[in-house]
Amino acid sequence: MGANSSASVTPQIAPDQPGISDLFAVLAYGEISAFYRLVEEAQLSPSLRGKVAVAKMAASEMNHFTTLERALSERDVDVFDAMAPYVRALDAYHASTNPSTWLESMVKFYVGDGIAADFYREIAGALPPEIADVVRDVLAETGHSEFVVDEVRSAVAANRQEKDRLTLWGRRLLGEAITQAQFVMAQREELADLLITATGTLNGIVALFDRMQESHSQRMQVLGLM
Amino acid sequence: MGANSSASVTPQIAPDQPGISDLFAVLAYGEISAFYRLVEEAQLSPSLRGKVAVAKMAASEMNHFTTLERALSERDVDVFDAMAPYVRALDAYHASTNPSTWLESMVKFYVGDGIAADFYREIAGALPPEIADVVRDVLAETGHSEFVVDEVRSAVAANRQEKDRLTLWGRRLLGEAITQAQFVMAQREELADLLITATGTLNGIVALFDRMQESHSQRMQVLGLM
Repeated sequence: MGANSSASVTPQIAPDQPGISDLFAVLAYGEISAFYRLVEEAQLSPSLRGKVAVAKMAASEMNHFTTLERALSERDVDVFDAMAPYVRALDAYHASTNPSTWLESMVKFYVGDGIAADFYREIAGALPPEIADVVRDVLAETGHSEFVVDEVRSAVAANRQEKDRLTLWGRRLLGEAITQAQFVMAQREELADLLITATGTLNGIVALFDRMQESHSQRMQVLGLM
Repeated sequence: MGANSSASVTPQIAPDQPGISDLFAVLAYGEISAFYRLVEEAQLSPSLRGKVAVAKMAASEMNHFTTLERALSERDVDVFDAMAPYVRALDAYHASTNPSTWLESMVKFYVGDGIAADFYREIAGALPPEIADVVRDVLAETGHSEFVVDEVRSAVAANRQEKDRLTLWGRRLLGEAITQAQFVMAQREELADLLITATGTLNGIVALFDRMQESHSQRMQVLGLM
């Protein structure tokens, strides 16, 4: 835990660092807000199949929440107290990316999930193994959002205007996510410290956002966008 | 089991009786409609704690749905095709019991769940064991609706008018549930056959509704109502 070399990939964060509870808390509120938003956005689905697929995604968010609640309780932290500072920023992300069509909803399920997972997985790389396991567990690809790929791909292949619209929509999702991630980090010094330790330096944070942009582009390509 | 003095309690229904797929299907759509309704009704919750408790209940509905989807698939039945006949009656139940306050929502979570579980458990008694296991699994008390007991009890202990209002509300929930259960049974002859076989005779069906009324009264007492 001595010298801070940016090249080092070994965990530099102690298991009792307070920022870890903050990380669990922001993930926990992320699951709750995603749960309620998914269900609301599923109302745009024209079919029962779509609603069932979304309900399964939402249920797995709640299973993740339970994991985080337990992890916080093992650290003697009440999940509701710990989540409170993050409610506003995460609600703001969803409010600013309110889909108006079922295609927009589907792109948001797929792309939004991916962005969040990238961000937290980068932090997980610097965490002690038992903490990293919790983070990776709750970010595990459930495969539930895969159902959107075929639907979006065929919709945009058939319609150039829809493709352009959804490409812009995807770009906006990334922009809003990064804006709100910065607000989240600004809420608690402990969390910002964790991110800086995880990425090594301020340059490391820039590199992290570059990698997120890169993964985002790959996901957009999978959807047949851009 | 014991209440059924004259009728045999040994399973009289063959595992390949078509009504079993119908029973799984109506249970499956029941989980989906409960999921979406729970989440919508949770918007009435004044606290994040209430919303989280409801989201957990909703997630366990979806876990049950997955069990039923698998059980139907093992019988070569597509869950979406099989659910279609029951959409209207179950949606009608929820539409006719739309809570206007958080207390009404909570009573509905607790009482509505209980009524449904009583009804299907009675049928399960006459099913072959491997089928009955699936039904009992998806009706298993998750304990998630227990959170309403304290909240409702203290609200009605403090307010006579609220108590009277919620007592009427509980009575309405039972009435609507029985009405819609009759519509559900009328959708498919196979399902009605199953119920008649399960209860023995038409008198058996009357006795079943009497027992449901009795369990309902016990639940209302637990909530400090009536």
